[in-house]
Formats: sequence, C-alpha cells, structure tokens
Amino acid sequence: MAELRKDPITGLWVISAPERAQRPQQTSLAGRQSPCPFCAGNEAETPPEVFAIRDSTTSANEPGWRVRAVPNRYPALTPHAESHSESDRELSPAIGAHEVIIESPEHVEDLTELDEEQFARVLHTYRHRMAVLGSDTRWRSLFLFKNQGIAAGGSLLHVHSQLIAMATTPPQLEKEFCGARDYYTATGRCAYCDMINQELGTSTRVVDVESNYLAFCPHASRVPYETWIMPRYHGSHFEAGAPEHDIGLARILRDTLRRLEKALSTKLFNYIVHSGPLHEGESPYFHWHLEMLPRLVQFGGFEWGSGTYINSVRPEDAARLLRQVAP
Amino acid sequence: MAELRKDPITGLWVISAPERAQRPQQTSLAGRQSPCPFCAGNEAETPPEVFAIRDSTTSANEPGWRVRAVPNRYPALTPHAESHSESDRELSPAIGAHEVIIESPEHVEDLTELDEEQFARVLHTYRHRMAVLGSDTRWRSLFLFKNQGIAAGGSLLHVHSQLIAMATTPPQLEKEFCGARDYYTATGRCAYCDMINQELGTSTRVVDVESNYLAFCPHASRVPYETWIMPRYHGSHFEAGAPEHDIGLARILRDTLRRLEKALSTKLFNYIVHSGPLHEGESPYFHWHLEMLPRLVQFGGFEWGSGTYINSVRPEDAARLLRQVAP
Repeated sequence: MAELRKDPITGLWVISAPERAQRPQQTSLAGRQSPCPFCAGNEAETPPEVFAIRDSTTSANEPGWRVRAVPNRYPALTPHAESHSESDRELSPAIGAHEVIIESPEHVEDLTELDEEQFARVLHTYRHRMAVLGSDTRWRSLFLFKNQGIAAGGSLLHVHSQLIAMATTPPQLEKEFCGARDYYTATGRCAYCDMINQELGTSTRVVDVESNYLAFCPHASRVPYETWIMPRYHGSHFEAGAPEHDIGLARILRDTLRRLEKALSTKLFNYIVHSGPLHEGESPYFHWHLEMLPRLVQFGGFEWGSGTYINSVRPEDAARLLRQVAP
Repeated sequence: MAELRKDPITGLWVISAPERAQRPQQTSLAGRQSPCPFCAGNEAETPPEVFAIRDSTTSANEPGWRVRAVPNRYPALTPHAESHSESDRELSPAIGAHEVIIESPEHVEDLTELDEEQFARVLHTYRHRMAVLGSDTRWRSLFLFKNQGIAAGGSLLHVHSQLIAMATTPPQLEKEFCGARDYYTATGRCAYCDMINQELGTSTRVVDVESNYLAFCPHASRVPYETWIMPRYHGSHFEAGAPEHDIGLARILRDTLRRLEKALSTKLFNYIVHSGPLHEGESPYFHWHLEMLPRLVQFGGFEWGSGTYINSVRPEDAARLLRQVAP
C-alpha cells in the first residue's frame, strides 16, 4: 500500500508507492513489447472506465469512444486505507484517487496532432472528472497534469493526462492559496487579475491573446520558455469554466504548444492545471490557470538544495521568440 | 546581470541568469569541440584560481595542482550589483559568489575513479572554500553541490563541484533551519542525532557505517536510492569538521557512490552538502549532512504542481540492495 512519509525536519511529504515500480515503461512505439493499453480495442488492459465521450450506440469499455477516463492501474494513492494501525506522526496511508484521461482512441503521441474539436472534448473531460472528484468530500486537493514524453516523466507514450485527488493539501499548494488570499486581503484585488492587467499593459511577456484567454511567460519563470495560460476574466475554478469557451481555450492551448514545439524543437513538456480550493465556491482571490513547462533543461544539486531555480532565458526573450513563431 | 525574480503569489524566487546561456555544454569527451577547460594545462580557460592544492614548486594558474578552485566563468550570481536603481519588490540583483572546484587535474568524468587521498583533498578544498565564503558577512547561505552527468544538470563532464554563496536565504533552506530549531526547542535534542540513533537502532535503512559517519536511505526519500551521509557525532557545520576525519568521510562517500553505481548501473547523480546557518557558531540544533540523489527518474507535472514526490522504491528496499553490493 502507498504511504505518505513526512520528513521530520522540513515537514515535506513523499508518496512512497512501491506498486508503481511494476508499471510498464515505454521508450518508443517501435520498441513496445506489448500492445498499447490506451489504444481503442485494448480497453480490457485498463481498469473499467469511469467516464467516456463515446458514440451513443457503443457500450462502456468497448471501442467507440473519443476520450476515456479510467482509474490508474498503478495508482500513487488509493481511496481506502488497508489495515494501518500505527499512529505514526511521520507515516500515514496515501489516501486519494488517481485517474488517467486517455485523449485519443488512435495511437497519437503528440498532443498537437489532435484537432481543436478533440482538444475541446479533452477539456470537457478534465472539467467533468475534476468536478466529480472535487465534489467528493474526502478530497482536499486536485492535480490535473500531463507528462508528455519519457524525459518529462511519462511512462506511456499514448496521449493522456492524469488526475490526482488527495485527502490532504500539500504545503506547496497551501502556499499558493495563502499567497493569493493574503494578496486579496491586502489589496482587495485578485493577484492574477492584476498580473493579467500588467502583462497586457506592458506586452513584453505576452505570447498570445484570445478573446477569453491569455498566454504569457511569467515574470518569475522557473524554466526557459515556461508559459502560463489564464482566463482573462476572473474565475477561480477550472472545473466551473464555461463550456462555450472550450474551443477558444483549445485553440490557444494547441497554438501555444505548437509555438513551443516549433521554436524549441522539442515535444517534451508538462502542464498542470491550478484550480481553486476544493470545498470553497467561486472565490474572489484565486484565479485558475494552466502552467506549461517545456523540458529543455535538467535540474541539478543547487535546485535540490535550495528550492531556487536558475533560468538562463529571460521570460521577455522567451515570449518574443514564441510570438514570432507561427503556430 | 543576473536577477532574483520573485513570484508575487508563492513568494518563491528564481535566479534569472541569461549569461549562463552562453556556457559550453559537453555531451561526451569524444564529441568535444574544444579542449576541456578544467584539464591541467588549460588553466587560462578559467578565471584565475582562488585556491589550489598544488606542488610547492609550481605557481598559481599553472599545472602542478591536485585540486583547484576558480570563480565560475558563467556565474548565476555576481558579487556586486550593477546600476539597479529600481526598487521593485519582485526584482533585485542576484548578489552572491559562484565558484567551481575542479577535482582532478586529469580528465576524469566519474568521481569514483579518484582514490581516497584525492577524495580527501577534495573534501579539504570544500571545507576551505566554504569557510572563506562563509566568513564573508555579505553572504547568508552557502550551497556546495555536484551535478555528475548531463542528465543530472552538469554542463562540463570533467569532475567538479560548485559552491554558491547567496546574499539571502532561500525559503527551502530557511524551512530546514526552522524545522531543526523547532525540534530542538520542543525536545532539547538535535533532530538529526535522534534520526541517527533511530536508524542505527532499526538498521533497516542503513547502507554503511564508518567509525565517524553513517550512510542511510532516509525515511522520506524523495527519489529511489536517495542516500544521506551524516557524521555520527554532533557537528553543525561541514566547514568546521575535523580534517583528521576526512579519510573516513572520503571512504564512506566513495564506497556509497560505488554501491549506487554498481546497483543501479548509473553514474548520474547529484549531491548537496547541508551545513549549519552562516553567522552562527557551532549550533546544538543543526547537524551537517550530505544528501545524495541518483538520477534514475524524471519528475512530472504532479511534482511540479504539488511539490510532493512520488517514490516507487521504499527506502528500506533501497538500503537492503545497496548493503548487498560490494563497493
């Protein structure tokens, strides 16, 4: 069973999940030993689906789907604690949910190959599963993220994202919520709305603007070409977003990925959706956003030891290059 | 000029150092375009040395050295601020020092190829440069670290470590010091001394024991086979360590690296020396240690978004395997 282990000095947690060592690791499509468990036709290779967008004439766990959400077969967290009698301050069961959202029935390895309609279906699925898990009172935090490519932490190459719900709030997320709350208390304004106004005002870090969304390289970019996508109008929770805006979001998200791929000649990236605190309704202080991190550099001992990143590309220079590339 | 940029919401910093984009990146010895700047004979390729262990008949910046410390040619921080008039809350000059410690005059790429005497000279140089920079009242924090291999964040392959002094204390280091201080206040004991007693008591996570040092996989290991080396007897500052123990430390450090290399078939790793707070003398609450992190796995979006690591190898299993390997 997976455990949460706490460092007694820093208080930071680690999820110890030895079962995940069993999961298959693909290195290339050509090198695959076994059929891809995420391709249509191989539905039996995953746990039964919890949601799918599929043709109305087809049945669950059969082909005919466009997007499919399933529990992770090698979960980092599990919904129920097995016998764990110890009341150890530094060890507890890792309770939560861990799902996979399969983003194409065909074997596609690069998200930008999906068209905008398929992208919008993917976004709809993100929203739906986040809303379902977010309304479960057992969970305190949600993480929707994508690891594209082995060197970006992916283990299967078929396009997919992951959704983790935790029964606790990790310190880093708590810090983000607290920072946003403090800013609101001090100023009466949303920190992210202020950021959007500032970015649109100076324009030097803007990558793309859509009627409802903005893509920009943040002031304190941790890695070269880090790009955030944010709704231009206040909204705290991704899962409460307006479905009619999905095509616009799909467009700016896909275009941004294409800019990164063309400018940097890499398909390796992570993105993470930051949504508002669970169990709070629409909040005036948090503003959902998607953080996109191309994986061009490796961290070293300094980052490990200090928690501070060294970025050799100024976000202003990154944004200038990304703007110049035609998506 | 390098800048410290602060995220307005999380308060986390980034060092924006565009000059570092100019630094050479080696991928292999065979593929090198230009001579290795760290090899003996190429002393003119680095800034003038600030320290060297060298034959008494030789002069600075000439061959004849065994270990050599030089300022980093592409520093992430610089000792003086250039004109920076703005008083921007979220932007300040990145003030500090950034040195390189070259650990062999011959072109060696794997630290374990050094013999124990050379290892001890390296440790002496670490201590010396940390003491020199640590006594400079401008600096608030010190980071001695090694990135071995490109995939571990290295840019030059010749064995070397880096030493960064900062005019500020990054939040993660502050958290470590505070955690240790709180533990001491609450219990009257050093948290790390307690950890050593516990590890030696149960033995399940112990990798190696030397008369003055212990190597073990910590309870909350962030990555598979993370291993810490710690003095068994209390000492807060690495740079204040006893030189007569250097051979023992060299022995356990080299043996631990060999165990990791043999067990995991990788030469990629980082290590980081965690030493006590600058401008405090010997402290009862902090205990220096060296954290070693083999680079077997890639982080993904979950780690980026949550700050929580998922580790698929239990430290008890990691230690058992490492103990079984003959160094």
